[in-house]
Amino acid sequence: MIKVGIVGGTGYTGVELLRLLAQHPQAELRAITSRADAGTAVSQMFPSLRGHVGLHFTHPDEARLEQCDLVFFATPNGIAMQQARALLDAGVRIIDLAADFRIRDVALWEKWYGMSHACPDLVAEAVYGLPEINRAQIREARLVANPGCYPTAVQLGFIPLLEAGLVDEANLIADAKSGVSGAGRKAELGFLFSEAADNFKAYGVPGHRHLPEIRQGLAQAAQREIGLTFVPHLTPMIRGIHATLYARLRQDADLQTLYEQRYAGEAFVDVMPAGSHPETRSVRGANCCRIAVHRPQQGSTTVVLAVIDNLVKGAAGQAVQNMNIMFGLPETAALTHVPLLP
Amino acid sequence: MIKVGIVGGTGYTGVELLRLLAQHPQAELRAITSRADAGTAVSQMFPSLRGHVGLHFTHPDEARLEQCDLVFFATPNGIAMQQARALLDAGVRIIDLAADFRIRDVALWEKWYGMSHACPDLVAEAVYGLPEINRAQIREARLVANPGCYPTAVQLGFIPLLEAGLVDEANLIADAKSGVSGAGRKAELGFLFSEAADNFKAYGVPGHRHLPEIRQGLAQAAQREIGLTFVPHLTPMIRGIHATLYARLRQDADLQTLYEQRYAGEAFVDVMPAGSHPETRSVRGANCCRIAVHRPQQGSTTVVLAVIDNLVKGAAGQAVQNMNIMFGLPETAALTHVPLLP
Amino acid sequence: MIKVGIVGGTGYTGVELLRLLAQHPQAELRAITSRADAGTAVSQMFPSLRGHVGLHFTHPDEARLEQCDLVFFATPNGIAMQQARALLDAGVRIIDLAADFRIRDVALWEKWYGMSHACPDLVAEAVYGLPEINRAQIREARLVANPGCYPTAVQLGFIPLLEAGLVDEANLIADAKSGVSGAGRKAELGFLFSEAADNFKAYGVPGHRHLPEIRQGLAQAAQREIGLTFVPHLTPMIRGIHATLYARLRQDADLQTLYEQRYAGEAFVDVMPAGSHPETRSVRGANCCRIAVHRPQQGSTTVVLAVIDNLVKGAAGQAVQNMNIMFGLPETAALTHVPLLP
Amino acid sequence: MIKVGIVGGTGYTGVELLRLLAQHPQAELRAITSRADAGTAVSQMFPSLRGHVGLHFTHPDEARLEQCDLVFFATPNGIAMQQARALLDAGVRIIDLAADFRIRDVALWEKWYGMSHACPDLVAEAVYGLPEINRAQIREARLVANPGCYPTAVQLGFIPLLEAGLVDEANLIADAKSGVSGAGRKAELGFLFSEAADNFKAYGVPGHRHLPEIRQGLAQAAQREIGLTFVPHLTPMIRGIHATLYARLRQDADLQTLYEQRYAGEAFVDVMPAGSHPETRSVRGANCCRIAVHRPQQGSTTVVLAVIDNLVKGAAGQAVQNMNIMFGLPETAALTHVPLLP
Repeated sequence: MIKVGIVGGTGYTGVELLRLLAQHPQAELRAITSRADAGTAVSQMFPSLRGHVGLHFTHPDEARLEQCDLVFFATPNGIAMQQARALLDAGVRIIDLAADFRIRDVALWEKWYGMSHACPDLVAEAVYGLPEINRAQIREARLVANPGCYPTAVQLGFIPLLEAGLVDEANLIADAKSGVSGAGRKAELGFLFSEAADNFKAYGVPGHRHLPEIRQGLAQAAQREIGLTFVPHLTPMIRGIHATLYARLRQDADLQTLYEQRYAGEAFVDVMPAGSHPETRSVRGANCCRIAVHRPQQGSTTVVLAVIDNLVKGAAGQAVQNMNIMFGLPETAALTHVPLLP
Repeated sequence: MIKVGIVGGTGYTGVELLRLLAQHPQAELRAITSRADAGTAVSQMFPSLRGHVGLHFTHPDEARLEQCDLVFFATPNGIAMQQARALLDAGVRIIDLAADFRIRDVALWEKWYGMSHACPDLVAEAVYGLPEINRAQIREARLVANPGCYPTAVQLGFIPLLEAGLVDEANLIADAKSGVSGAGRKAELGFLFSEAADNFKAYGVPGHRHLPEIRQGLAQAAQREIGLTFVPHLTPMIRGIHATLYARLRQDADLQTLYEQRYAGEAFVDVMPAGSHPETRSVRGANCCRIAVHRPQQGSTTVVLAVIDNLVKGAAGQAVQNMNIMFGLPETAALTHVPLLP
Repeated sequence: MIKVGIVGGTGYTGVELLRLLAQHPQAELRAITSRADAGTAVSQMFPSLRGHVGLHFTHPDEARLEQCDLVFFATPNGIAMQQARALLDAGVRIIDLAADFRIRDVALWEKWYGMSHACPDLVAEAVYGLPEINRAQIREARLVANPGCYPTAVQLGFIPLLEAGLVDEANLIADAKSGVSGAGRKAELGFLFSEAADNFKAYGVPGHRHLPEIRQGLAQAAQREIGLTFVPHLTPMIRGIHATLYARLRQDADLQTLYEQRYAGEAFVDVMPAGSHPETRSVRGANCCRIAVHRPQQGSTTVVLAVIDNLVKGAAGQAVQNMNIMFGLPETAALTHVPLLP
Repeated sequence: MIKVGIVGGTGYTGVELLRLLAQHPQAELRAITSRADAGTAVSQMFPSLRGHVGLHFTHPDEARLEQCDLVFFATPNGIAMQQARALLDAGVRIIDLAADFRIRDVALWEKWYGMSHACPDLVAEAVYGLPEINRAQIREARLVANPGCYPTAVQLGFIPLLEAGLVDEANLIADAKSGVSGAGRKAELGFLFSEAADNFKAYGVPGHRHLPEIRQGLAQAAQREIGLTFVPHLTPMIRGIHATLYARLRQDADLQTLYEQRYAGEAFVDVMPAGSHPETRSVRGANCCRIAVHRPQQGSTTVVLAVIDNLVKGAAGQAVQNMNIMFGLPETAALTHVPLLP
């Protein structure tokens, strides 16, 4: 059994990790920390976990995380970088679900996240945890930077085109729509039911923190600089991201075959039949990205549709997938849920 | 492996059965029938099942259901009663998720359902599949009538009070609220998103088909006639039933202990701590009924709150629970999902 | 033109008042105060008001409210009672949309609201602003206590039965469901979209602040003490209250006619045809209470269904109705909106 | 008073027309037809209209529409073209809210709509009813083709750029999101609450009927052929369209000023301050298009955000606006509603 700790388990990423790990045959939950809620039963905060999770939240100072095999950080940005070194030194492996180790260019990270990085050298060591790209490195990693939700959907959607060099990589467009849980479990006016229900809006058009992360990943796939316009939107649903991706084709190609071959061996990427329109609910609760590729009116613009559950393949599920890879378990362990529909 | 067939699998109860059975370690899905959609891949109609269910819908005439060990009817009312005899004669056991065998008084059934019953003798044989009441009989049953969604929540909520004889059973009130999936996957104006969203209403106040079923169950628990006012409401959510139950106490009692003891051994009934308010989302996707019992201002009226997922404990999950009991499997097999929250 | 001021206009009651008053032919908005947002254009906070409301929020100290004819308090509880005396002394009339002046028994108010009352004598003077009961007194009032949202729906639903002495007033039940805007525009976890959407729950079963207010009103209608069990619920919609009311009949009666006659002259109470089930959306955005009265299976329990828009007839609309009465305007002025459906 | 008739008033466009016209000071509703519901009171089908609309649905054969000054067609495609000639010959003016007269190229229309056109010559006469483009011609028109919902939002968003010749008109992208009411009041599985709620998807990527309509309008604005990729999406809200538009700039320009000047005199187009993100709810129930123009990271791609209420500025409201223009009334008559927020 892998001894697992979770730092910061009171948000949506945390409760989702608990949902998945509670049913993992080879993970043993040892501690989950929360400074504010130490002593509270986890299942009191999240009644959905009654009967499944017996733990109480522990104060960080008493959690003995250094005795774990693996620690997940389900914390706000800027926490994991403070604590990573000590845990690594104690032989603990780390998966950070926040953004601290996602951007290789530390100066760029500091600009977008508005703080100094506490351990730039660990940034260099960290592996970006998108298994469909970095599986081999993840296997050996001590420190995995779990990708953001938008970046997961956008990268999985664009990568086959970029790796094949088929599109004008200087003018990519990603129009992405997220459910409200993507904003986290924070008491902010804009995410109240009465503000977000029956409403649709774009946000962050001048610039969103996921932009440099996406650019970095797409540039790596294209093996050159890329240009991207990224517009996120808030849509009145709880879970789900739908990325609608636009690129101009440089040449003709069998796009359906390209996608099917690229993801042929992937358990968690589903290339749908030609002509499909994936729905976010078709992956609700599941660690799955469904993709469809279109070329409307046989024109020069290709349209790729990619959906994920932002809390699963976009966060906690991908983290468990990374754990499975890091510890030599079957990659699908505890990740075979059938999506909940309707 | 238990060889399982499903008649009528294109509704919400059908897809939910498929979700649960696809992950059942001892069930083997042999056939799922649909007259209209014969030949279509199940996963084409329900993309959530891609990678989990490989079956196609079969025409009823070609399904060879008589070779199954168990057949579920996830059909409209009036279908199972036409086909039950032949299957039973072939040695197949049956769980009917519709209402054909729920009411023991055939004349009463015929009045509320507006048709003649095709096999009144089988009504006498059928076992009402509420395990928390009839577990022993279910074990031996050839034919199980799976309870309705409202009746499950209302009965589980009222039964401890009635069995203990603590309340005025002549004046019970059940104010119940259901998500829209309770109406089924039928193209009707009233259940369109634009009609049902951001809206709340009662319906069927003069009389609802679940009324006689609830009355029958409550009378059995009370061992006398009962009087019930039942008002169902439609609430703008997909899944979930919340029953708010009112009864006048005849005498003082420790209601919390009463409920905890009544359901002490039950895997799928969770009596919450005193003062709780169960939420429907706390059971989303799970075969669970959570109950809280209140006595506001220490008055003579007790208020019981009971929540279920109408498609799971209110339909497909309870059916799988019944299957497990009928075939001597662990009652919780394939029913240990952690609810999906948020 | 009536010179109008609003204290505390940044909540849902405030923006709704602005929506209604912006189109009122005889109201002139002079000031709207907000300590935190002084200087901000109202239409910057609420873009729906762009082109309709040109005001900026004013600091309370600079608002010169004493020059108004009427001041609305759209504030949290406990504010109006601090400022009422000075305004009344300056000749300003007041409508308080909070609870400060609703309960005549000051000790009872202090118990439920957890603070000392700043001006008990004004409580005695204040008129409870339910026009269908107190129209004559409202006309002369200097200080009107605008009713709560639940109390409006529950009282309008029960009053005809109680005034006629037809029901057992000792055992009334009000099962009420509210949209999330009833919780106000406050950043609290429980009202986040991701917490409240696709979910249903009761709350405050042990006791809710609207209970004493409802009891007071029903007792006045019955002209004796009444007993009431009141259970509020949170339902995933923005606006709307649906009250389902239960009472035991003492004698037979033509309930439909009773209700039609009681509300015959009322512009804002619509008694629907026998057998109806009013929907909350049928009053969305309108100052209207629709009511249907049922007697299921001709039994001894009557079921009354009453719906309002909690922000209109349950708050801002009723406040404007009171203003119209106080100033001798047509009672329907600025309140003739057709509900927004779908 | 203008004598008004409505053909086909049982859909969402119909009830919205009724909402607006019921409060129009110079319109007199004479008849509303429905073959299936003749004899039914309009307010029985739409209880929101109780007290506002006293009409019953009339059978088309008995409606005497030729005695009206103006007839609105709120019908499926292909109906208005059958009846337009006779009405025009009788001196009645027509506004068609369906698509029969929107596309000037009849062959193109027949290809996309799958039927032969009944009166191609009237297509030539019809005026496309986008007032911000064609106000002068609308004033004189006998027959107005009211624009589609997506085309209204996309054209108002792109037109300033195209008229100014600032962008590469061969590679425009319109990523549009619609509320479910855009699908109409039809009993179809895909628009059930349980299918459309908590879900997001694209549809019609290979081709959507609004594509040729949008292309026609944009080409006219650009005064040359344009290339457009148009992807519509279904979002879980009742009303609202959000168009996110992408175009590559040919040269630098002050886009904010360009938009403000283009729409300076328009009552129903609101160019928001630089940096804004318009929300669909900010126009809920109102005849308004709010627009914001962005240039992320000062790059070569401009992003325009445009929101409308699909049933108002995208259908019934624009139709009333056209009526006002045709009959010399103030253009804003009956269209000054403040949007309903929250």
